[in-house]
Amino acid sequence: MLNVISTKEATQTVQNGIQLDSVGTQVVPLASCIGRKTASDIISGEFIPPFSRSTVDGFAVSASDTYGSSESIPAMLTLKGEILMGKKADTKINKGECIRISTGGMLPEGADSVVMLEYTQTDFDGLCLVFKAVGPFENVTKKGDDITPGKTVIQKGTILSSTHIGILASLGITGVECVKRPVVAVISTGDELIPITEKPTDGKIRNINSCMLSALLSENGCDVVDFGIIKDSKNLLEEALQKAAKQSDVVLISGGSSAGARDLTAEIINENGTLCFHGISMKPGKPTIFGNCFGKPVFGLPGHPTAAYFVSVRVVLPLLKKLGAVIRPNRTETAVLSCNLPSNHGREEIVCVKLENGKAIPVFGKSGIVSLLSESDGYVIIGRNCEGLKLGEAVTVNLF
Amino acid sequence: MLNVISTKEATQTVQNGIQLDSVGTQVVPLASCIGRKTASDIISGEFIPPFSRSTVDGFAVSASDTYGSSESIPAMLTLKGEILMGKKADTKINKGECIRISTGGMLPEGADSVVMLEYTQTDFDGLCLVFKAVGPFENVTKKGDDITPGKTVIQKGTILSSTHIGILASLGITGVECVKRPVVAVISTGDELIPITEKPTDGKIRNINSCMLSALLSENGCDVVDFGIIKDSKNLLEEALQKAAKQSDVVLISGGSSAGARDLTAEIINENGTLCFHGISMKPGKPTIFGNCFGKPVFGLPGHPTAAYFVSVRVVLPLLKKLGAVIRPNRTETAVLSCNLPSNHGREEIVCVKLENGKAIPVFGKSGIVSLLSESDGYVIIGRNCEGLKLGEAVTVNLF
Repeated sequence: MLNVISTKEATQTVQNGIQLDSVGTQVVPLASCIGRKTASDIISGEFIPPFSRSTVDGFAVSASDTYGSSESIPAMLTLKGEILMGKKADTKINKGECIRISTGGMLPEGADSVVMLEYTQTDFDGLCLVFKAVGPFENVTKKGDDITPGKTVIQKGTILSSTHIGILASLGITGVECVKRPVVAVISTGDELIPITEKPTDGKIRNINSCMLSALLSENGCDVVDFGIIKDSKNLLEEALQKAAKQSDVVLISGGSSAGARDLTAEIINENGTLCFHGISMKPGKPTIFGNCFGKPVFGLPGHPTAAYFVSVRVVLPLLKKLGAVIRPNRTETAVLSCNLPSNHGREEIVCVKLENGKAIPVFGKSGIVSLLSESDGYVIIGRNCEGLKLGEAVTVNLF
Repeated sequence: MLNVISTKEATQTVQNGIQLDSVGTQVVPLASCIGRKTASDIISGEFIPPFSRSTVDGFAVSASDTYGSSESIPAMLTLKGEILMGKKADTKINKGECIRISTGGMLPEGADSVVMLEYTQTDFDGLCLVFKAVGPFENVTKKGDDITPGKTVIQKGTILSSTHIGILASLGITGVECVKRPVVAVISTGDELIPITEKPTDGKIRNINSCMLSALLSENGCDVVDFGIIKDSKNLLEEALQKAAKQSDVVLISGGSSAGARDLTAEIINENGTLCFHGISMKPGKPTIFGNCFGKPVFGLPGHPTAAYFVSVRVVLPLLKKLGAVIRPNRTETAVLSCNLPSNHGREEIVCVKLENGKAIPVFGKSGIVSLLSESDGYVIIGRNCEGLKLGEAVTVNLF
């Protein structure tokens, strides 16, 4: 019999001794940094905008030249030409002068504001009539109005999205120091397993777990090294584990279904490191193993895909999060349970459900049913101190 | 002046005439299909499990041989050896016989159930004592219990996640027919623009929009062809647009800031296709242009990054969704407004907000401020028929 611990204890044990908040950092090109976590504050080295710019189409003026002007008594200014887009404003304007400027154009020396086109008239040779006064810096974004050098524009630990790209691009930041994606090695064991590309003959089944775990890990900010299928042999598994530990930050061994195969993983961890626990009081997921071996955290996951999935979500992902992985946020929805769900006291139970019109309908299936996950919309957790949930009760559904 | 239409009319106009629900389909390898949308029902061609399997470690028996057995009066069966994992069960068992089997092992001919190890004893030479009766198919998953040939395992239009990978792998499906990611061409225009790798000299600013729009589009299930910066020249822009239309499904031209540059896009669309609208009653985003040109939908987006971002979210993404793109679900949160937000009747207004302890705090900034998006957590939409929102009012915040 396994000496089981609670899911909470398991999660804590797994994270014990992890001091790092990442497995390292790396510079990621701007075009690839969506979804990545910043490893340090990003600090501006420049003024944004880099020069004072007009925010409208009109005429750059000295505000004081327009004071008192109105529809009936316009100010009369001498037009000095035009500031071309993308060009240095090298025409200085003096008192009583103005210059045509477009939205985004560089404000020339001597000007402190811009009169909008619609409040002006330039029909007179070399003259511009201004029918509305402007205040200093009206219709202007001053140099550094947005950002000055030394300002933290994005904080350490931010998960980058498209809304951060504008500010990075404006500062000319083409690479961002991000937290590395943890590398997870995935090993599937079992004499009954064949690659998914093969057609199963009697007694064989396809290696589902490597594909499923790789997908789950990729979805949650990790890189995967797939070690494929290892036969139920102590030597082969030990060899693969040693190699995997070298090439990764965390190793997942998804277990042979048979008791002997399961014990092999525990034995190897015990002989080459520390076996921390063997058994979690969680259904599905009981025969889970965890230890440190060859210098890396190693999990022995159940062979059943659904069990391997839920142990990964409940126990493995929190460790990977601590190691810097960007875990997908857990989305939940409250729904009304469509039937009674009895449960064993002292054991956490995970029940897959479908959602229909605000109802959570449990999806049951015999042990090892692989369609359970794909046919459900999410799952309900029955806590270990709970004896079950009742028909009509409002429950929190964790959405897939 | 622009003849503006509402955001709703704009969205409808943009989607008018789109009959397709995708820009095509393609077979995507299993390892890359997370986040992709299935283009057809996925139908099983096999039985899962492919043979009747034991779900426990124990002894395969004929259930009728165990009827009436108990702790005090065990059934005595002849042990016929062991079924090895991954091997064909070629030992047939007869009445009064049993065979050792592991979880996942193939049930032999003659057996219809499995007695768990803990209810048996094999200390006697060649005999196995069974202390508990089992019913037919107890502790067994029958061939096809999960899936039979012809069953739809995943429906058309499903967005694939790791929960779907198990079932696909179990059926040996190594490639999935998915909806193609729409290809969007991004053109930035403006004589003031320089690549983000360059240091701006007077009057120049970096090309923010190409980076930001590419990121937004990638995040929302599209592939991007970046046409870089095109100078404010009718010939050059027309040439680029023609090339872009050939290579993509939708073209985005993010506009020169100046009025002249903006008009260029409208002019080219008008001369080579149909200009559908020029101006949306939305702030920011008013000078948005849309038409069909060189056979493709073409948008002229405002030059200001924040405006270009919101027009893309509100008007461009719905079109891309209709063309098959997997748009990120809109996550919202209800929060209490921290101040009054007046608004112009007849115009939709988008206000960026920060979230703090359940409060939505508007983030204001002069036109063209690029840090607005990165400093906000989401945005509030003030509808066009609303004259503003009040301090203390509960508002829906669309999260970035």
